[in-house]
Amino acid sequence: MDTVTPFQYELIYNAFSFTFAAMAAATLFLWLSRSQVAPAYRTALTISGVVTGIAAYHYFRIFESWHQAYMFKDGVVTVTGVAFNDAYRYVDWLLTVPLLLIELILVMRLSRAETNAKTIKLGTAAALMIVLGYPGEIATDLGARALWGGLSMIPFIYIVWQLFVGLGESIKQQPVAAQGLVRTARMVTFASWGFYPVVFAAPFFGLTGGSVETAIQVGYTIADLVAKVGLGILIFLIAVRKSETETVDGKAYAG
Amino acid sequence: MDTVTPFQYELIYNAFSFTFAAMAAATLFLWLSRSQVAPAYRTALTISGVVTGIAAYHYFRIFESWHQAYMFKDGVVTVTGVAFNDAYRYVDWLLTVPLLLIELILVMRLSRAETNAKTIKLGTAAALMIVLGYPGEIATDLGARALWGGLSMIPFIYIVWQLFVGLGESIKQQPVAAQGLVRTARMVTFASWGFYPVVFAAPFFGLTGGSVETAIQVGYTIADLVAKVGLGILIFLIAVRKSETETVDGKAYAG
Repeated sequence: MDTVTPFQYELIYNAFSFTFAAMAAATLFLWLSRSQVAPAYRTALTISGVVTGIAAYHYFRIFESWHQAYMFKDGVVTVTGVAFNDAYRYVDWLLTVPLLLIELILVMRLSRAETNAKTIKLGTAAALMIVLGYPGEIATDLGARALWGGLSMIPFIYIVWQLFVGLGESIKQQPVAAQGLVRTARMVTFASWGFYPVVFAAPFFGLTGGSVETAIQVGYTIADLVAKVGLGILIFLIAVRKSETETVDGKAYAG
Repeated sequence: MDTVTPFQYELIYNAFSFTFAAMAAATLFLWLSRSQVAPAYRTALTISGVVTGIAAYHYFRIFESWHQAYMFKDGVVTVTGVAFNDAYRYVDWLLTVPLLLIELILVMRLSRAETNAKTIKLGTAAALMIVLGYPGEIATDLGARALWGGLSMIPFIYIVWQLFVGLGESIKQQPVAAQGLVRTARMVTFASWGFYPVVFAAPFFGLTGGSVETAIQVGYTIADLVAKVGLGILIFLIAVRKSETETVDGKAYAG
């Protein structure tokens, strides 16, 4: 375990606690908001809440693991020898990343055939991306990190291409009032996902020890917040906006 | 860590426990009450409950941290050396203060454009206010505390001005039955928020050691209770009052 300064220790500690609170709050918000949208969009909100809920659980565990890996007493941080379990992140992503893509597809309300095809293609690519990235994350030499990171980029680029080209055509089928929000959701997904490889590459930027640990932990945490809570709120807004254009028994849907 | 007397230790300990209970109770009350109000006001109640829920989590953590920072045994309080994590408060505020402003805006039910504009302006100012205040809170010399506290007052004054001038005009658009309650909600927000800088300034009033610690912890706790639980109950009352003036299918909304 890298030694960290008291500032780095507390920054990471508080970032984990903040993220647990934000993920748990988003989960309850998304689930309670199901009744505010038309039935067709409720599954998208349910899954958005499942994603932040799974992340809340993992941030609780990561927080506990961080707390056990170090002792902060009398102003000094010492390593306890208990390993910090970095695998929680990859376990979380293996579950949540395919679901994030599914919530994005569901809120667009494509045809059933299109929904199924995109879910299987993007979900499989996402799982492959996570599985290939993990050996790089725990590798101790930079060569192995670069190799697995590079392999993981292949499904990553496929997903980004699909989001831009494949979903791009579907955006035109969306109600005009929701098109801007759907475009923002796609952009948030793209920007936050693009941030993960940058964080992964932190050790290549000359950072070492506590600094690289801090860059990786805080970097992934920010990316997770944007990708999960940010996208969840956008999914909610899109669902509300699209519900307003739906009619139930000839009247506009009123929640 | 400052040494505190047994009285101060117990006062703060019980204040934290009281506040956890009050925040958790308010959360469940607000969420369970969603079905009592017209659909347009349910998101305001959901968010009010999210705010008290996030605060309940942080008071639980603050309570635990306080418990670990001191040992109270055989009538004597001693410092354990484990740091008391004051950052929980700022992490909490970073999440809840923008949300508090959003719940106040949502319950007024302004036009979509006005809601979005006010949410972004007030939310950003609130986040800036918290981020600027934190370096002052943890500073060990009074000069730095005064500097960051002063910088934090700039967005604070902007928010108060917006609440009074900006939202003041919107109050006239509210149903007559709810105008008084909306004015009270604005006043509670103003009064409780105005109390935070007073607590922040406690070390300038000649208080030291355990006395300043007690003033700060108990002061912030009271301000949090009024700003979150007090405002949440007012939002509920406004939502109920406004729901009574709404009609569904030509009939008054009956809950």
